[in-house]
Amino acid sequence: MSGNTFGTLFTVTTFGESHGPAIGCIVDGCPPGLPLSEADIQPELDRRRPGTSRHVTQRQEPDTVEILSGVYQGVTTGTPIALLIRNQDQRSKDYGNITDSFRPGHADFTYWKKYGIRDPRGGGRSSARLTAPVVAAGAIAKKWLAAQFGTTFTGGMRQIGEVVIPFQSWEHVNQNPFFAPTADAAVLQQLEDYMDSIRKEGDSIGARVDVVAQNVPAGLGEPIYDKLDAEIAYAMMGINAVKGVEIGDGFGCVAQKGSQHGDELTEAGFLSNHAGGVLGGISTGQDIVVSMAIKPTSSIRIPRRSLDVNGDPVMVETFGRHDPCVGIRATPIAEAMLALVLIDHALRHRAQCGDVHSGAA
Amino acid sequence: MSGNTFGTLFTVTTFGESHGPAIGCIVDGCPPGLPLSEADIQPELDRRRPGTSRHVTQRQEPDTVEILSGVYQGVTTGTPIALLIRNQDQRSKDYGNITDSFRPGHADFTYWKKYGIRDPRGGGRSSARLTAPVVAAGAIAKKWLAAQFGTTFTGGMRQIGEVVIPFQSWEHVNQNPFFAPTADAAVLQQLEDYMDSIRKEGDSIGARVDVVAQNVPAGLGEPIYDKLDAEIAYAMMGINAVKGVEIGDGFGCVAQKGSQHGDELTEAGFLSNHAGGVLGGISTGQDIVVSMAIKPTSSIRIPRRSLDVNGDPVMVETFGRHDPCVGIRATPIAEAMLALVLIDHALRHRAQCGDVHSGAA
Amino acid sequence: MSGNTFGTLFTVTTFGESHGPAIGCIVDGCPPGLPLSEADIQPELDRRRPGTSRHVTQRQEPDTVEILSGVYQGVTTGTPIALLIRNQDQRSKDYGNITDSFRPGHADFTYWKKYGIRDPRGGGRSSARLTAPVVAAGAIAKKWLAAQFGTTFTGGMRQIGEVVIPFQSWEHVNQNPFFAPTADAAVLQQLEDYMDSIRKEGDSIGARVDVVAQNVPAGLGEPIYDKLDAEIAYAMMGINAVKGVEIGDGFGCVAQKGSQHGDELTEAGFLSNHAGGVLGGISTGQDIVVSMAIKPTSSIRIPRRSLDVNGDPVMVETFGRHDPCVGIRATPIAEAMLALVLIDHALRHRAQCGDVHSGAA
Amino acid sequence: MSGNTFGTLFTVTTFGESHGPAIGCIVDGCPPGLPLSEADIQPELDRRRPGTSRHVTQRQEPDTVEILSGVYQGVTTGTPIALLIRNQDQRSKDYGNITDSFRPGHADFTYWKKYGIRDPRGGGRSSARLTAPVVAAGAIAKKWLAAQFGTTFTGGMRQIGEVVIPFQSWEHVNQNPFFAPTADAAVLQQLEDYMDSIRKEGDSIGARVDVVAQNVPAGLGEPIYDKLDAEIAYAMMGINAVKGVEIGDGFGCVAQKGSQHGDELTEAGFLSNHAGGVLGGISTGQDIVVSMAIKPTSSIRIPRRSLDVNGDPVMVETFGRHDPCVGIRATPIAEAMLALVLIDHALRHRAQCGDVHSGAA
Repeated sequence: MSGNTFGTLFTVTTFGESHGPAIGCIVDGCPPGLPLSEADIQPELDRRRPGTSRHVTQRQEPDTVEILSGVYQGVTTGTPIALLIRNQDQRSKDYGNITDSFRPGHADFTYWKKYGIRDPRGGGRSSARLTAPVVAAGAIAKKWLAAQFGTTFTGGMRQIGEVVIPFQSWEHVNQNPFFAPTADAAVLQQLEDYMDSIRKEGDSIGARVDVVAQNVPAGLGEPIYDKLDAEIAYAMMGINAVKGVEIGDGFGCVAQKGSQHGDELTEAGFLSNHAGGVLGGISTGQDIVVSMAIKPTSSIRIPRRSLDVNGDPVMVETFGRHDPCVGIRATPIAEAMLALVLIDHALRHRAQCGDVHSGAA
Repeated sequence: MSGNTFGTLFTVTTFGESHGPAIGCIVDGCPPGLPLSEADIQPELDRRRPGTSRHVTQRQEPDTVEILSGVYQGVTTGTPIALLIRNQDQRSKDYGNITDSFRPGHADFTYWKKYGIRDPRGGGRSSARLTAPVVAAGAIAKKWLAAQFGTTFTGGMRQIGEVVIPFQSWEHVNQNPFFAPTADAAVLQQLEDYMDSIRKEGDSIGARVDVVAQNVPAGLGEPIYDKLDAEIAYAMMGINAVKGVEIGDGFGCVAQKGSQHGDELTEAGFLSNHAGGVLGGISTGQDIVVSMAIKPTSSIRIPRRSLDVNGDPVMVETFGRHDPCVGIRATPIAEAMLALVLIDHALRHRAQCGDVHSGAA
Repeated sequence: MSGNTFGTLFTVTTFGESHGPAIGCIVDGCPPGLPLSEADIQPELDRRRPGTSRHVTQRQEPDTVEILSGVYQGVTTGTPIALLIRNQDQRSKDYGNITDSFRPGHADFTYWKKYGIRDPRGGGRSSARLTAPVVAAGAIAKKWLAAQFGTTFTGGMRQIGEVVIPFQSWEHVNQNPFFAPTADAAVLQQLEDYMDSIRKEGDSIGARVDVVAQNVPAGLGEPIYDKLDAEIAYAMMGINAVKGVEIGDGFGCVAQKGSQHGDELTEAGFLSNHAGGVLGGISTGQDIVVSMAIKPTSSIRIPRRSLDVNGDPVMVETFGRHDPCVGIRATPIAEAMLALVLIDHALRHRAQCGDVHSGAA
Repeated sequence: MSGNTFGTLFTVTTFGESHGPAIGCIVDGCPPGLPLSEADIQPELDRRRPGTSRHVTQRQEPDTVEILSGVYQGVTTGTPIALLIRNQDQRSKDYGNITDSFRPGHADFTYWKKYGIRDPRGGGRSSARLTAPVVAAGAIAKKWLAAQFGTTFTGGMRQIGEVVIPFQSWEHVNQNPFFAPTADAAVLQQLEDYMDSIRKEGDSIGARVDVVAQNVPAGLGEPIYDKLDAEIAYAMMGINAVKGVEIGDGFGCVAQKGSQHGDELTEAGFLSNHAGGVLGGISTGQDIVVSMAIKPTSSIRIPRRSLDVNGDPVMVETFGRHDPCVGIRATPIAEAMLALVLIDHALRHRAQCGDVHSGAA
C-alpha cells in the first residue's frame, strides 16, 4: 500500500536507498519447482549495471546478487525468494552540495513535501539504482515465462534527443553501449558524438525506448481496471523518468480511422498488429509492443534556479556521477517490468480460468 | 484481483454488462461526514450520457442513479455507498449478426480466449457503458477533493483524427458536442463536418483528450511503484480504447535537454510545468496535466475480414448504435478516473504521513 | 481496505444497512462456466431467514435475491456477479428510543467513536442482517467447491447457555428450529423451554456452534500469515457476536501431550483428527472442524445503565424485534464463511501451484 | 497473496527458512519521523530467543538484527525498513532422519501436498524460527503506538498442560523462564518439575497464553470483515501451533446471558470488560484481552506411526533440538502480532476518518 510492492500474485517488494548498506527485494508467489540460482539473475543485472561505458554513470557497482531464501537444492520451493545486493561505491560526499536544496525536475522536492524528511545521499530511495532489484526479480519471471510459454523479451533505444535510430534488428541491441537495434557504424558513431557533446555541455537528454514480448499466450489481462495494457502503462510509467507510454500504435491512433486500425483476422492469424497485442485489456497472442518516453536526467552541471529546504533561493549545480541519458540503461529495466506484469497475469489467469493456452491466436 | 475494483483505500467495485438488467458499483472507504445525494452525481452522468447529439451513439439511456446505502440523513456514514443504474434501452437484436464472430479491434476475441464464454450483447462487460459507474463514483471523489483542497477538474478534446483543435479555454468545453475547448464557430463547424463525413463512410476515428486537475496538494503519490503518474497511466490506459498516455510534456521529453525540461523553482513558485505536476511519482502542487490517445471505435459498418467462434473466415459489418468517435465522451470519464486516483492517494498520504497540506508549492 | 470486502481472489464486497432500501454484494473472481441461477442461492438464504420460528426475530423478510450481472444464459461468465436483496420490513420506529444512546455490549458505541456518525435504524451497518449477502455469496462458493472436489458443508448448534446438546447426526440439523444435530424429542423440548424462559425474562443467551467441511483437498492454505486456520478464525470471529474460535481440539490442546495430539498417519489414512484438518496452516485432506462461541444478543428488554451521545447517563431497554439467541441462525452463516475461505484458497492454490488434487490424503 | 505479508497499510513481508543463510523482513508503511535503531528491536528479539533456559530449544542463535534501509540519521524516512537476521547455528544433520517422512502433527505433510517440494531442514519455512522477524517488526509497531497513544503490551503463560497458573501480576512475566505472571516460588517450582518430566518422557505439552494491550484508542477496527477482533484472531491463529483464540470472555460467553455479558457504561467508564475491548469489531478504549490455545510440539522423541514421501509406513522419532512447550516463547510473539494489528488499524483509521483520539472512553 505504501508503493514498494509490485504485482498481486507474483509480488516484488523492494527496499534500500542509493547510499545505504544494501538494496534488494523479496519475490513472493513464485511457483515451486523452477530451477533457479544466482547465475540466472546475474546476467540481467550486468546488462543494467552502471560504469560499463563512458555514456553512463561512472559509479562502480558489481551488483552481485545473493539468494537468501526460497530455493532448496537449486529449485524454487514456493516460499519467498529474498535477493540481496550490497552497495559498494557510495561516495556520499559527491552530494554534499545538494543535500539542502532541490534539483529542478528531481524528486528531492516532492519527497520533502511528502515525508518531511529525506535521505539525500544519491537521491536516496528515488534513485534509479532501485531498479536493480526489479531487474533481478524480472529475471525470475522471464525464466518461468520462457519455460511455460516460450515467451521472450527484447527491446532497445529508438531515439536519443533528436537522433532517431533506424531499426535494423533487436539482435544488435546488446552489441553497442546504447541498446540501439542497429549495427550501422555511422548511426552508432552519431550516437557516440551526440552523447559526448551532451556530456561536455554538462547537460542531459531524453530518449524513446521500445520493448516487445513475443510468444505471449492469448487471454492474459483482467477486464475493466487491471487491463493488461493498463498494468503495462503503470509498470512503465513507474520507471524513473518515464513521462509517456504507448501500446501498439499509441498516439498514432489519434489520426487513424477504424477501418485502418482494427487488425483483421484470418485463418493464418492477424494481418497486422496496430493493437500492440492487447484488445479490451486482454492479450491477443500477438507480440506485446510498448514504447516509452524518458525525460532527460534532472541532475546536470548547468546551474539552475531553485529553493533550499528553508525556502530560500539558491542556484543548483549537480556534480557527482550521473547518467546523462537515463534512457540508455532503461531497456533491461523495461523488459523486467513487462515480464513481471505478464507473470502476474499468467498466475491470475490460472487462478480464475485455469491453465492458459500458449502461442498466438 | 479479478480487475473489477479500482483503488486501494477509496475503492470502486463495478458490476454489470451493457445489456443486463443493471450496472452499478460499490464505493468503499469514503470518509464519513460528506454531504451527498443523487443530485451530486447525476450531472456528471448526464455529461457522459449517450444520445445527446448526432455524433454519439443514439442509444437512449437516462442513466438515473440510485444510492442504495452509505448515506444517512444526507451525509456519508463511512460505510459502503452502493450506486445502481438500471439499463433501459437494450436492443440485443442489433447485435444478432456479431454474436458468433469477432469484430477486428474489439475485445470480442480476447474475452472469448480468456473466459471461453462471453456475453455478446452490446459488448457485454467490455462495453464503454461500464464507464458510467466510474463517472458516478468519480463525482463523489470530486466532491470530497473540492471540499478538502479546492481541487477542480477540467479537460477536453484536443484533436479528432487530423483536426487539431486550437485551445482557447476550458470554459467552452461543455458548450459544444465535442468537449472542445474553443468557442470558435469555424473550428466547431469543421468538427461537425468532419464527424458527419466519418459517420457517412460508416467508419470511425481516433482522438486526443487532455485532462487537468488544479489545486492538488503537494506530496501525493507513493515512491517506486504506486507513483502518482504510474497510477494515472494505469487509470487512463484502462479507459476503453486508450492506447497512449502522457504526463506533462510526455513524448515531447524525448527531444528535450535537462536544462530545458527541469522546472525551475523560485520563491514565487515553479516557472514552468514540463513535469505535468509530478516529480519522482509525487505531486508537486502544480496542475496535474494528462494527455491520452484514443483509438477509433472498432464497431464500424465497413466490412472487414475476421473469424467466427469456430475459426471459420467471415466478413464482419457492425450495425447497431455506436459512437463513431469514442473520444468525444471520454472527458468526463477521464476526469472521474483522475479524481479517483487523487482521492485514493490523499487517503494513503493521510494514513502514513498524516494530513496533507493544501495548495501549490 | 475499509473492511467490506471478504477474500482475495474470490471476493465478496457487501453493502447496505438494516433499514436502508436494499442490501447486497458483488462477487468477483468466480470462475467462468459455472451453471448458476437464483434457485441455487435462495435455499441458503431461506435457512438464515428471520421469522421462521418464535425463537428468532419476528421481522418478516422474504430475502428474495436478484442476480444483476455475471451470468449469461444460466452460466457464469467470469465477470462480477451482483446480488441484490431489497429490504421489506423496516420499522424504524421500533428503534426510536435507542437512537441517541448506546446499548451495553453493542456496536452503537464504537461506530459512534469511529465515524462520529451512525445510522441507528436497526443497528445500521452493524446489524446481523448484513450476513444475508454473505450467505448468498457462500452458496455460489459451495456450488463450485461441490463441483470441483465434492466438498460438502454441515454444522449446527452444540450448546445454548448451559444446555449442552448431545450429538446424534448432522442430518437432523434442518429438522428443528435450533439447528440442533439431534432428533431426541426430550432434548428439543428442553431447548424450547429454555428459549421460552429466556425470552420471557427479556434476556438473551450465548451459544456454541460447530461447522465442518468434508472432502476438502489437501494442500489449501498459505504458510506464515494466510494460513487456512488463521483465515477461518478471521472469517468466524468476524461473524456478529462471535467471541472465540477453535480448530480441531482447540482449547482442549492446552492439556494435551504431543504423543496424544499428533494425528498418526497410516496407509489407510489418518487415525484421528485432533488437528481439525489443518497442519502448518495447510489442509490435510481430513474434515475441517471449527467451533465458535457466540455471545448473547446485546439488545435486551432488561434495563441497563449506559450513556447517551452527549455523555449523559441513561437507562437503556431495547424493544423492537431481536433474536434472543443469535447463535440459532449462525450455522448457515458459518458454513458460508467457511466455503468462502475454501474457494479463495483453492483459487490461490491454483494460481501458484496449479490444480489441486481432490480427496483426503 | 502467497501468505508471507502481514498487514495492509503497515506491512511486514518475511522471508527465510530455519536453516537457510538468513531470515528477515521488509516493514513497509511505517510513518516517517520515528526515532529508530537496532537497540529498539534487539530487546524484543532477546525475549523470544532460543537457548535461554533448559525448557526451550538449545539451538544457539544470537538473533542479531541489522537495519538495512528506511532509517536516516536515526529516524524513519517513510520508506521500507529491511531487517536482516543471519542464521548461525544450523545443524542440518540433526534432521537427517526425518527428511523423507512426515512427523505426525507437523507441517511436513501439508507442505509436501501443497508444493510438491519442501526444505526439510529444521522445518524449513514452517519453523517457529520464522516468528523472529515478526517480533522485530512488532518492536517498531510498539514504539510508534507507545509514542502516539501510550499503548503498552503485556501477557504471559496462564496454563501449561494441566497446571493452571494463578495470576499475580504481569510484572513477574520477565522474571521466570515460563513467562508466568507469578512470583510464587511453589508455582514456579511446580512448572520446573512438570516441564522436566515432560522433557524426560521425550514428549511435549500444550499451553494457554494471554496477551493484553492497554491504552488502545477507541474506534480502531473495520466493520463487517476486517473487524479488529477478526484480525486479532487471524493474527493469533497464524502463530505456529495455535489452535484456539478468544477475545474477552471467549468461550465463557456460551453460558452467559445478555444481562450478564453486556458491559454497562457510566460517566466513570465501563463497569466491566467482558467484551475484551472490542464491540462490533471496533475497539472500545478498554484493554484488548486475548487468550490462545497452543498445541504441544509435534517434534517428539516418542516413536509414532507415519508415512514417508513414497507413502510407505514408517516409525518417526524426532531428535534434534526442539521446544518441549512452544507456548513458553509465545508471549513476545503474540504481543508483536497484536501490536502489528493495532498499528495497521490505527493507520487505516487515520486514512478514512482522520486522527484517532487516544485513551479509553
